[in-house]
Amino acid sequence: MQLYPLKLVTVVGESVIMDDIAEQGIKLGASGYTISDVLGHGSRSARNVSVMGEVKTKKLEFVVAGELAVEILTYVSHEYFEHYAVIAWLSDVSVVRGEQYTHKSSH
Amino acid sequence: MQLYPLKLVTVVGESVIMDDIAEQGIKLGASGYTISDVLGHGSRSARNVSVMGEVKTKKLEFVVAGELAVEILTYVSHEYFEHYAVIAWLSDVSVVRGEQYTHKSSH
Amino acid sequence: MQLYPLKLVTVVGESVIMDDIAEQGIKLGASGYTISDVLGHGSRSARNVSVMGEVKTKKLEFVVAGELAVEILTYVSHEYFEHYAVIAWLSDVSVVRGEQYTHKSSH
Repeated sequence: MQLYPLKLVTVVGESVIMDDIAEQGIKLGASGYTISDVLGHGSRSARNVSVMGEVKTKKLEFVVAGELAVEILTYVSHEYFEHYAVIAWLSDVSVVRGEQYTHKSSH
Repeated sequence: MQLYPLKLVTVVGESVIMDDIAEQGIKLGASGYTISDVLGHGSRSARNVSVMGEVKTKKLEFVVAGELAVEILTYVSHEYFEHYAVIAWLSDVSVVRGEQYTHKSSH
Repeated sequence: MQLYPLKLVTVVGESVIMDDIAEQGIKLGASGYTISDVLGHGSRSARNVSVMGEVKTKKLEFVVAGELAVEILTYVSHEYFEHYAVIAWLSDVSVVRGEQYTHKSSH
């Protein structure tokens, strides 16, 4: 079994912006993503909601090559960090049969 | 506090195959797993569903020793990669009081 | 774009203890957390429920500096490991614009 070193990009933020970020990730070359519901509580959220507390947010994840990971994070930070409650990070993963992730696809 | 280097195995795929993979992980020696609902969108999914778009999938996670992680990934790739929408990866984690994960248990 | 090396702390366990752990994480200095529903199955759970099988649990995540990560894990292990079904681990992440995480905040 061969394992490919790739990046897991995780974006957690307000639901309203997640569809756009997911779509942009695909446009940039990601072959897929997953999205799930989480409750979030944080100082970033606090700036944007009147009541401090847990708010419904989404977690969006891509498994992509390193260069593309940085492109997605750059998009998120440039487009959304100033006005939305969102955080984003990447981590190292080893993917089984990662051929489909190693090159940008032609979506 | 002692931390143990282990592997987080993540499998994302069609709901129909997840129970089997979870059960197989336990048979192989994992002491537990978690499973959650995610929406997935990907080129692998696209081969298996008629409508392109987000589909209900499951995310399955095990925290296990490195050798067992590879066994689980090998099982997933051999049994399911050809005909199902599924991706799988592993990452490094440091687990608190990991004794229960360091040896295969006798499930 | 600058990336900051931080830690992702993940705690998976019985719902009843998760609010306390989340609150304690904030008290210790975390700027936020996310919490989500997962089904769990594990040998630790088996000690606490009469029927072996999948049980509703929560996954709690913090992105914090390394020292704070250890403090949170220490709290979880000291307070809950003996009597509750809970596991906890940390992993390395690179966070975009991580200034808000690098110092303990004054919550």
